Amino acid sequence: MTRPTIEFWYEFSSSYSYLAVMRIEALAGQAGVDVAWRPFLLGPVFLALGWNDSPFNIYPPKGRYMWRDLARLSAKYGLAFRMPGRFPRSGVLAARVALIGNQGGWVAQFSRAVMSANFAQDRDIGDPAVIMAILADMRLPAEEVLAQATSADNKLALRAQTARAAELGLFGAPSFRVGDELFWGNDRLEDALDWARGASAPVLPG
Amino acid sequence: MTRPTIEFWYEFSSSYSYLAVMRIEALAGQAGVDVAWRPFLLGPVFLALGWNDSPFNIYPPKGRYMWRDLARLSAKYGLAFRMPGRFPRSGVLAARVALIGNQGGWVAQFSRAVMSANFAQDRDIGDPAVIMAILADMRLPAEEVLAQATSADNKLALRAQTARAAELGLFGAPSFRVGDELFWGNDRLEDALDWARGASAPVLPG
Repeated sequence: MTRPTIEFWYEFSSSYSYLAVMRIEALAGQAGVDVAWRPFLLGPVFLALGWNDSPFNIYPPKGRYMWRDLARLSAKYGLAFRMPGRFPRSGVLAARVALIGNQGGWVAQFSRAVMSANFAQDRDIGDPAVIMAILADMRLPAEEVLAQATSADNKLALRAQTARAAELGLFGAPSFRVGDELFWGNDRLEDALDWARGASAPVLPG
Repeated sequence: MTRPTIEFWYEFSSSYSYLAVMRIEALAGQAGVDVAWRPFLLGPVFLALGWNDSPFNIYPPKGRYMWRDLARLSAKYGLAFRMPGRFPRSGVLAARVALIGNQGGWVAQFSRAVMSANFAQDRDIGDPAVIMAILADMRLPAEEVLAQATSADNKLALRAQTARAAELGLFGAPSFRVGDELFWGNDRLEDALDWARGASAPVLPG
């Protein structure tokens, strides 16, 4: 029997993606579900919805609430949290590097380190020096990885992955896919894993 | 010792409010928390954010997802669900009646009946005949209640309650307030009740 898989779509600049990136590996492991990491860019997805900035910036009451909610949820999950000095920060370089990490088997660890930098340490993840420091901490050849990440082929790969997200009907991050079933938001992670395990699929009404 | 209270802000036309209305009384009872029912109108709140319709209609990918999510969550909670033929339906009259029900002690039962009519039976809750049938089923004097509900004073009371919602920073429904703490969305109901019980308040980081 093959293990079920959950596709995990996330964006490094997204606040609720922080919570999901930090939580998913342990929860999926307990559920016996494999994780397919799918970093993508929210910018083009939001533009298609008519937003040229994070909706948390466009709608101030939503933004104020989100930061408070994030602090509460971080406490609930036992995760560190520090209000970033800037939001959103560019997640483009981190996403490009994460695609390389997918091939190298270190995407999960790298993603957690970048998310912690952004939302627990208030470091600028858009700065190549920060990404290189993270890679060096992981004992990876930082310059080589960065060169691969910024190659024309890899840039194209991230663009294709982002186009695929829009094609699949994604409109925010984090999102989870199990087969054709879409789940949106950190608070749906447990439901998506239940679905992957086949625990909740058969009971759906009309 | 006084029992803790949760303010429950909901709108009869709101799909996720359906889930919270159906669930809150039993969960609050188990938690030993009193519920203060606060029906209000999302329309003016959305207008202030620049939306002249439900965001689920303005952003089709969000809308498609919401209906699927609602079907899944209804199944998870054991609630009936039928896709309404029209969305959103006017919740104005129902909210006016609910204010009268708050004084009469039947707001919870009435709210569940209206929500079931809208989201499980596909009936038009904007139609006074539907509201009157619900009141008659509850053995209440339907015509008398409707006259009270549509009095100038009571219309003003709903307007004031809606203005208060905006003042409190609410931007969607359902929302929950515990003291000054705001929680948004059906999926935060359990967290809000934990907060009211004092189970999660002390651990918040900076």
